Amino acid sequence: MKVEIITIGDEILIGQIMDTNAAWMGRELTKQGFEIAAISSVGDQYKDITRAIDIGFERAEILLLTGGVGPTADDITKHTLCTYFHTALVFNDEVMQNIESIFLKRNLPLNQLTRKQAYVPANSRVIMNSAGTAPVLWFEKESKVLVSMPGVPFEMKTAMTDSIIPMLREQFQVKEYLRRSYIVSEITESALATRLAEFENRLSKGISQAYLPYAGFIRLRLSAWGEEHKPEMKQQGRKLKRLLGKNFIAESEKMPEELLGDKLRKKHLTVSTAESCTGGFIAHKITLFPGASLCYKGSIVSYDIQIKEEILNVGSKTIDEYGVVSREVVELMALNVAGLMKTSCSIAVSGVMGPDGGTKDKPVGTVWVGTTYNSVINSCEYHVGNCREENIERTANLAILQLLKMIERKK
Amino acid sequence: MKVEIITIGDEILIGQIMDTNAAWMGRELTKQGFEIAAISSVGDQYKDITRAIDIGFERAEILLLTGGVGPTADDITKHTLCTYFHTALVFNDEVMQNIESIFLKRNLPLNQLTRKQAYVPANSRVIMNSAGTAPVLWFEKESKVLVSMPGVPFEMKTAMTDSIIPMLREQFQVKEYLRRSYIVSEITESALATRLAEFENRLSKGISQAYLPYAGFIRLRLSAWGEEHKPEMKQQGRKLKRLLGKNFIAESEKMPEELLGDKLRKKHLTVSTAESCTGGFIAHKITLFPGASLCYKGSIVSYDIQIKEEILNVGSKTIDEYGVVSREVVELMALNVAGLMKTSCSIAVSGVMGPDGGTKDKPVGTVWVGTTYNSVINSCEYHVGNCREENIERTANLAILQLLKMIERKK
Repeated sequence: MKVEIITIGDEILIGQIMDTNAAWMGRELTKQGFEIAAISSVGDQYKDITRAIDIGFERAEILLLTGGVGPTADDITKHTLCTYFHTALVFNDEVMQNIESIFLKRNLPLNQLTRKQAYVPANSRVIMNSAGTAPVLWFEKESKVLVSMPGVPFEMKTAMTDSIIPMLREQFQVKEYLRRSYIVSEITESALATRLAEFENRLSKGISQAYLPYAGFIRLRLSAWGEEHKPEMKQQGRKLKRLLGKNFIAESEKMPEELLGDKLRKKHLTVSTAESCTGGFIAHKITLFPGASLCYKGSIVSYDIQIKEEILNVGSKTIDEYGVVSREVVELMALNVAGLMKTSCSIAVSGVMGPDGGTKDKPVGTVWVGTTYNSVINSCEYHVGNCREENIERTANLAILQLLKMIERKK
Repeated sequence: MKVEIITIGDEILIGQIMDTNAAWMGRELTKQGFEIAAISSVGDQYKDITRAIDIGFERAEILLLTGGVGPTADDITKHTLCTYFHTALVFNDEVMQNIESIFLKRNLPLNQLTRKQAYVPANSRVIMNSAGTAPVLWFEKESKVLVSMPGVPFEMKTAMTDSIIPMLREQFQVKEYLRRSYIVSEITESALATRLAEFENRLSKGISQAYLPYAGFIRLRLSAWGEEHKPEMKQQGRKLKRLLGKNFIAESEKMPEELLGDKLRKKHLTVSTAESCTGGFIAHKITLFPGASLCYKGSIVSYDIQIKEEILNVGSKTIDEYGVVSREVVELMALNVAGLMKTSCSIAVSGVMGPDGGTKDKPVGTVWVGTTYNSVINSCEYHVGNCREENIERTANLAILQLLKMIERKK
């Protein structure tokens, strides 16, 4: 059963925001057995939205629209759908009550613009939006479905989870989507593909393999539609794991930081971080997941050299002799933060993320990562790239993987 | 001149990755005067890519494709383009030399798969990819252009900046895109729209206004195509600023954290952070921008209560009496981190991000933010939402805006 996601809003086209809705919807719908035919984004223009809907109905049975349903004049999705489905707006009491209760709870005054949101297309089925004021609208056209929902991520997610996905599953038959996902490290994509070429050639029709490079690791995916492929998927998964050898990190859909959290909690370990060049990004990655407080104690973000010396107790002599980006400094940072925060594990990073700060000896992209596990220390030098944002992401991933491997191999 | 961006890859449709390329390209192209007609994402399938190209050529003069050009078998964009443009692959010496030099630099062995990347469609113009091994391909069809480039963000960005945008600007005439962007806080979207309704109605045709809600603030945009609108844009911008009154934070395309960095550097101020519930995200936001080291010293991420007591010197009596999420605790955190790190400003946050940890008195979403500026302290309570990820983002933005306003109003 094919779905097309259409996200609406000039702000997406001009790159003022990142379209995070489509990725979330793609992930959730695929899990539930729906196949995403395409994602398209168009601006807040009648003819662009209409054309996108026409194209969508050619490619898919289900169209899910987000955005353009706010109370302001630049939002025209509701009016466009009225014209598209040859209908008119009517006042809906239930929607008005929902709006009133939300405004009451937040202690905000109602105004005329907000009242406008209670008007809905006469031939649509209205789904209450428990997380916001814009109603969710469900239209049917022959045997196909179009749903319009708000672009605000939290409202969209609530509507999808509580109402739309269950309703779609009731109305449409779906095939099961099987997926096995592997995190692989310390190998290039082409070297990995060379190693797996024969394996891939021997996969049955219907099972496909894909490579997804991340900053610092590769995610390898085996997938198939339909539960008849289950036994082979399992068998090939085992074979694949053997072929990956020491490059295999985990079979999981999770991100490395989430795996690290799981492992730490399972083993009753705790972790702290001392971050220079990643500026708190490792701490953020780990604490993004619920339950972080059970294994994560804290971080010293020692962006300035003075913090390394005064709070992390890295001697100024060591810094002068070896430089801030060195094995000696990250080892002291890692050991001292673990001591200071009384954790069984720690991660420390120091590097040059660019665009400035590189030297001949230590060009932009030079990074040292130190990790400790029960006072044993491991430190490695990495060479990341030239792009600051990507360097921060890559360094954080490499550091998290370094600790993950260390704990994994000591079991 | 209209552009359609087509991003290719099953991983985008199934939500395994976020399509960050499209947003970056949209932003850069708009700045250069190109109008984005649509963004579409399709999977690695011959017929899906072909159909997307056909639709794209209907909507736009320029199609920019990213993805599907890696060395592995799941990448089929190059072969699809060969068929689409009725041509065949030929070996290209210059591309091979580029590949060899990249592998040599990274000290990696070449293999057959990598050699395959040196084959290019005979009727395409080849643009060297200085950042990676997959060549960038430029095709022409009547007076329209299609460019295929790698999906790896850094490679795409390098190719766009160094080659594709300059080449497109040479070949196509573009109108200037005028944009004024305002950061507005402490007001709902509908209240703001009500206040601006008359202003918006009086704008000339060709100038449009749009609202973009972020977690914690609203970005308001005035825009127009063509430099003939410049005088009115300037005049309306002034009027708008007056109407925004105390809700106006800044006229800027930048994010609040970037504005904060600019302001701190300009005033020779420094900042430190003490983060509990945001787990390092404020530090990350500030340090993402080059030049952060000139104003940012560091952070104590005090996720665990012990770190608040032992490193931030928040007395256990204060914590017992008022609770971790309280005015008293964030004020001590903010003052003590500024003392510890010797900074003129500081930000401290403590809150309940969920899904667990809420109580009757302090439900999920309760947050206290303390900010200091030359030892003067300001602390506020906020109520964010129910979604952990969004709560972290919203809290970070509110905290950054709180300090920004404090510095702004003291000038």
